Amino acid sequence: MSAEQQAREQQLTERVVTSFENTPDPRLKEVTQALTRHLHAFIREVRLTEAEWQQAIAFLTATGHLTDDRRQEFILLSDVFGASMQTVTVNNEAYRDATEATVLGPFFVADSPEIPPGGDIAGEAPGQPCWVEGTVTDTDGKPVPGARIEVWEADDDGFYDVQYDDDRTAARGHLFSGPDGSYRFWAIVPTPYPIPHDGPVGTLLTATGRSPLRASHLHFMVEAEGLRTLVTHIFVRGDKLLDSDSVFGVRDSLIKDFVPHPPGTPTPDGRDLGDRPWTRVRFDIVLAPAPGVPAGAQAPDRR
Amino acid sequence: MSAEQQAREQQLTERVVTSFENTPDPRLKEVTQALTRHLHAFIREVRLTEAEWQQAIAFLTATGHLTDDRRQEFILLSDVFGASMQTVTVNNEAYRDATEATVLGPFFVADSPEIPPGGDIAGEAPGQPCWVEGTVTDTDGKPVPGARIEVWEADDDGFYDVQYDDDRTAARGHLFSGPDGSYRFWAIVPTPYPIPHDGPVGTLLTATGRSPLRASHLHFMVEAEGLRTLVTHIFVRGDKLLDSDSVFGVRDSLIKDFVPHPPGTPTPDGRDLGDRPWTRVRFDIVLAPAPGVPAGAQAPDRR
Repeated sequence: MSAEQQAREQQLTERVVTSFENTPDPRLKEVTQALTRHLHAFIREVRLTEAEWQQAIAFLTATGHLTDDRRQEFILLSDVFGASMQTVTVNNEAYRDATEATVLGPFFVADSPEIPPGGDIAGEAPGQPCWVEGTVTDTDGKPVPGARIEVWEADDDGFYDVQYDDDRTAARGHLFSGPDGSYRFWAIVPTPYPIPHDGPVGTLLTATGRSPLRASHLHFMVEAEGLRTLVTHIFVRGDKLLDSDSVFGVRDSLIKDFVPHPPGTPTPDGRDLGDRPWTRVRFDIVLAPAPGVPAGAQAPDRR
Repeated sequence: MSAEQQAREQQLTERVVTSFENTPDPRLKEVTQALTRHLHAFIREVRLTEAEWQQAIAFLTATGHLTDDRRQEFILLSDVFGASMQTVTVNNEAYRDATEATVLGPFFVADSPEIPPGGDIAGEAPGQPCWVEGTVTDTDGKPVPGARIEVWEADDDGFYDVQYDDDRTAARGHLFSGPDGSYRFWAIVPTPYPIPHDGPVGTLLTATGRSPLRASHLHFMVEAEGLRTLVTHIFVRGDKLLDSDSVFGVRDSLIKDFVPHPPGTPTPDGRDLGDRPWTRVRFDIVLAPAPGVPAGAQAPDRR
């Protein structure tokens, strides 16, 4: 490429960056200028053709037209490019042995039913019973009592309760950790399901040889005073989809042993499951300090 | 930032890049992988917050919902970030003294009326008469006869004909260069106008302290066999908006002297304009070889 051509491209980028120079809000200025630099660097690097630019406009238009109150195709687009997961990663910096975060996903619902310790979130959701247990601690290893633990998951047919039309609540609930930071509840063994793939994002996945399937997972959101709220999943060791999760939510540290138990094996709480098999998994949760709270200074009198 | 945090972010980006590795079409693979790298680099550089990510999703959703057959808000978005102009720049590489290209814009219409040499494209469009003249040559300086020259522009009220509801055709037409490559026609003196700014893009311009106005310009599209099609504008020297054109279409080489003439000054073609003032501008057009055509080998028998 000629020096003249390089100069033209570089000067154009600088002209656009400069156009944002008088933005009153310093953060908006920073974000728009950085977006300009990266967007232009992309166009220049791939030598984007005018036909490809037209395709991009048409793709975004179709994505916008499919999006409504029930379907958010832009979030799916962000998900399949790993932009959602990278945003989560940037906002949940590694801190000692704090449990890693992953994407919230579109199926979280506030005001889920509370269950007692050892209760069952499954409701009418079909699936194999799964005993989930563990502790909530801070990064000094101290138990966190009273932590609010939200859990939600898809049923054996691959659907969350909110995807049905009948207003059911199932495979969703919340509980609190006990005085020693421990928790336990019944759920169902998670199974894989596809993200919605009948729109532009599905077309992109097909064209790039990718699967819409998510690795099997159980969602957690854990909140406690003075500690960083943790939004995460646990995944099933041995799941063939761990390396191809369509939204890149998998972290090695979040893969857990879901141990199968044959029918008739005694359950941890004496529950009689008749002739059904069941599964057991342990997930010990470690919460980082809340942003801005010095380590060791979080809510000292809560223990 | 800790080494662990850097590793997590970098590994995530690489995981997404790798997910596109089996894309059958090599160009789609290249574009999706490069887009992933630049998108992640942006998120990591600005440490995008989850609230900002939500705002971005909401912005794109609003942009999609405003877009329909008559309004293309995504093109406007591309325009105000200079992405449209950078795409044009990348696809029209500098070649000797070939005239520089700029954006097509949304108001080009095929099948415009043909006017004879020296004819008037203005129709009923209000505006001061403007005599436009010049030559079409190749980069060896040889005249290009029979080049198709499309011209279009906004009227004195800042609107293109297609923005009215009455199906008018005005300030739009095409003609052909003569045997010596020369051309001449009557148009109107261009005036500034805003891009549509009552949507999300307008909100962004306001928030960043930018104007929606475009610098005054007259559109050209010039086509000739064996030569690269040129899509460009000419701008008015002295226009205060030259440094703040909302879509970054201005190139110094495209700024021309629009010379005002008082009422009663004889016109180049003897046209009687009564007591109206008029303006004169010269624009000599130089066309690069068509892509893939060796310089000096273009259509030798067309002259």
